[in-house]
Amino acid sequence: MEVQQALQKLDQLQRKQQAYQHAMGLIDFDGATAAPSGAAANRGETLAILGEESYKLATGEETVALLDGLYANLNELDEVQRKIVRNLHEEIENMRRVPMDEYVAYQRLLNESQNVWHKAKETNDYALFMPVLEKMIAANKRLAGYMKPGLPTYDALLDRYEKGLTREKCDSFFHVIRRELVPLIHAVSNAAQVDDRILFGHFPLEQQKKLSDYLMEVMKLDRAHVGIAETEHPFTTSFTKYDVRISTHYHEENFSYSMFSVIHEGGHALYDAHPADNLAYTVLGGGVSMSIHESQSRFYENIIGRSRGYIRLIAPKLRELFPQLSGVDDEALYLAINKSTPSLIRTEADELTYCLHILIRYELEQQLFDGKLSVQDLPGAWNKLYKDCLGIEVPSDREGVLQDMHWSGGLFGYFPSYALGSAYGAQMLHVMKQTVDVEGALAKGDLAPINGWLEKNIWQYGGLYDPGELLAKALGAPFDPMYYVNYLKEKYSEIYHL
Amino acid sequence: MEVQQALQKLDQLQRKQQAYQHAMGLIDFDGATAAPSGAAANRGETLAILGEESYKLATGEETVALLDGLYANLNELDEVQRKIVRNLHEEIENMRRVPMDEYVAYQRLLNESQNVWHKAKETNDYALFMPVLEKMIAANKRLAGYMKPGLPTYDALLDRYEKGLTREKCDSFFHVIRRELVPLIHAVSNAAQVDDRILFGHFPLEQQKKLSDYLMEVMKLDRAHVGIAETEHPFTTSFTKYDVRISTHYHEENFSYSMFSVIHEGGHALYDAHPADNLAYTVLGGGVSMSIHESQSRFYENIIGRSRGYIRLIAPKLRELFPQLSGVDDEALYLAINKSTPSLIRTEADELTYCLHILIRYELEQQLFDGKLSVQDLPGAWNKLYKDCLGIEVPSDREGVLQDMHWSGGLFGYFPSYALGSAYGAQMLHVMKQTVDVEGALAKGDLAPINGWLEKNIWQYGGLYDPGELLAKALGAPFDPMYYVNYLKEKYSEIYHL
Repeated sequence: MEVQQALQKLDQLQRKQQAYQHAMGLIDFDGATAAPSGAAANRGETLAILGEESYKLATGEETVALLDGLYANLNELDEVQRKIVRNLHEEIENMRRVPMDEYVAYQRLLNESQNVWHKAKETNDYALFMPVLEKMIAANKRLAGYMKPGLPTYDALLDRYEKGLTREKCDSFFHVIRRELVPLIHAVSNAAQVDDRILFGHFPLEQQKKLSDYLMEVMKLDRAHVGIAETEHPFTTSFTKYDVRISTHYHEENFSYSMFSVIHEGGHALYDAHPADNLAYTVLGGGVSMSIHESQSRFYENIIGRSRGYIRLIAPKLRELFPQLSGVDDEALYLAINKSTPSLIRTEADELTYCLHILIRYELEQQLFDGKLSVQDLPGAWNKLYKDCLGIEVPSDREGVLQDMHWSGGLFGYFPSYALGSAYGAQMLHVMKQTVDVEGALAKGDLAPINGWLEKNIWQYGGLYDPGELLAKALGAPFDPMYYVNYLKEKYSEIYHL
Repeated sequence: MEVQQALQKLDQLQRKQQAYQHAMGLIDFDGATAAPSGAAANRGETLAILGEESYKLATGEETVALLDGLYANLNELDEVQRKIVRNLHEEIENMRRVPMDEYVAYQRLLNESQNVWHKAKETNDYALFMPVLEKMIAANKRLAGYMKPGLPTYDALLDRYEKGLTREKCDSFFHVIRRELVPLIHAVSNAAQVDDRILFGHFPLEQQKKLSDYLMEVMKLDRAHVGIAETEHPFTTSFTKYDVRISTHYHEENFSYSMFSVIHEGGHALYDAHPADNLAYTVLGGGVSMSIHESQSRFYENIIGRSRGYIRLIAPKLRELFPQLSGVDDEALYLAINKSTPSLIRTEADELTYCLHILIRYELEQQLFDGKLSVQDLPGAWNKLYKDCLGIEVPSDREGVLQDMHWSGGLFGYFPSYALGSAYGAQMLHVMKQTVDVEGALAKGDLAPINGWLEKNIWQYGGLYDPGELLAKALGAPFDPMYYVNYLKEKYSEIYHL
């Protein structure tokens, strides 16, 4: 086959896969938003069938021959084509090792698991979730073994979300975090607490929805291509760069929960919506890895969203939407949203204690996959770690081990990305400030220069470079967690007068 | 191939097609509900690709051989299998005559058309819709020619929604309707008008949503399998009997618009949710034809929903949700919702004048497809017919020719189903009353006996019998439009003291 002809076939193949991803992603999204509760089994049927079609397409003889042919002619391809062929070729090598029955059964299990988790969380019934969680761990062990037979299981899981990430690297990263941040958290705990009572009260749903619209406008999210929905647990999904969805969960008693969900998911959505057009409808059309994705969402949520400049920018709108804030000044808002105190729910944790929530999950995942902790003992181990690390009692599993959707969704090895992403973001801020007047942009209320830097250095590339490569290019230096540590030390020392 | 093995393959084939239908149906539903406005092109890409896969599956060599084999062994199959094979065999014969390029291009056009219509209606810009409507008519002419080369174009279109229906049969049906109902409408117009001012005012969205939930409960719609959403134009879609969606459009100034949409779409949803379980995941798992479908929706909307007994049943809830109705008695509500007066919008027309809206569309479709009316002249012809038949001026295209989504969705030949369905429903009521105490069921507020008759005689069969066959079984007599005429004469003579 001629290379040009093969490239056309490759384009068609990717478009077809994109169509399956769109359909399956939308069925998932619908399951979390609009679908009636009894439709889960039917959704599972469809996902299993489409998953099988997609799998057959990805690993079929024709595809293998096509990719073998192109892989043998890499030197005739341009940079984008080369990367696409390399990724798909590697994926085929991984996928071909997974028996199709196993793959299809996993799609069904995944659907069941998410559905059972929803019910278990709603009814605070961990026992309901236990058997399916057990199956999910076993299935993920087997899948990791098939896909990366050369790697220890947990390394294989980490590698799925961050190519090249290992338990060793995570350990050394978390070591710095633990060494530097635990004393800071201790000092903050002993300092006079800031007052955040202004965040609580009654904040009508309709007004909070208007706030979401406003926040998305400030972030320059293009609403023609980015939708917002309500779900139990906020998330972002993109069908292509042209159709991205974020979701949030409104709590009428505190507007800041949804506010920071919208900013966080909005950060993901900006990344998903901005790969270069020539990457759309290719396998490089999304973000490159979970930690780079989290670097964007947590950059927006914390480094921007919890900064003094940003609060000054949006405070007038907050006072307009919520009259009870009319007498509250910008500084009081800034302090309130930066109150740091150990808490139960990861997604509602403050910027400083957040990393400990991740440490706990990282620790538990390792034990689960090493076989040192049983699913039955998981809630006890969870509660003990919350007591040990954060000094708090977990009153119920729904506020404890059942709080996150990740494990029900098979996202084992994903959690470290949140902490890594936060740390990447802090170093990005340092580099960004060398050419961008970040404070000035916030003062003017025009975030274009900030988005411009992120688009130029991160977003436009989609999956073109591996995460390490992309990060090195963007930072111009090796990753160093001390930027993150110093950012937090400076911020919280000032807030808590340390 | 053994017959048993072939039947297994047939089952797999239908499940796969069901999965594609689910995905494509959901993408459409999402387009009408949650999708951001700029995502239409991307949706079109996916629909084109999945449509092509579904088409290939339906008409591929393997499928053709499978069905030819089973068709040659019909006597070894049970009733359900026989009907499935007959239907699919006929469909293949039809489909194979459509060039795949044409089919795929039509899927794209359909997506574009619906999107353009939405914009055109929103902005009252018929000129925007004109070129795409022209393309839709041309494409449907070509498709009708491919599929039913032996039939005149408009007969072929009618036959799509009601097997065996012809222009001749429609003409003779509408002849009776016209002859009998026009004098009645005339008499009603000259009688003292009933007062419906109680229907107007301010009816908050949240309260109307509670009313929708209540109405669905009264109809015994199982919310675990039937969802409700908001769209510009109300519709029902079902992915299987286990996942059905209805939609409505709330008008804050009059609760009755959405109320009757919910009851109408709820009637469709009851039918979609109740084929026997052994028909689910087969091609017989939905309703058999559009007119039988409309017979169910319009039976619920009008014959039940606009009856004195039903109004008595729900009046307390209306007074609870809308305090301004607290002093209004049941009879005043009954009269108000049965006010008959010529109006602009088909979906908001009263039960009596409704048929004229259908007559107008039936007339225009014939002219469009006969080439006697150009797309450019359509709004003028529309407005003239509304003046001639209903005596009203059409103030804008959005309240005129742009009001319905049908033509943008390629549903030419569909409109007569609404009128036929209404007439079928009236004859069903007559037969139902021989064994069911309809008034008693409404008085007790338990609609189970009514649903029971419909499930036993209509719903359970799904697509097992052809529409004519099903109707004959259910009615135990030939279809006679005079049941409908007499039902309307009796009802409106009493209301208007004729």
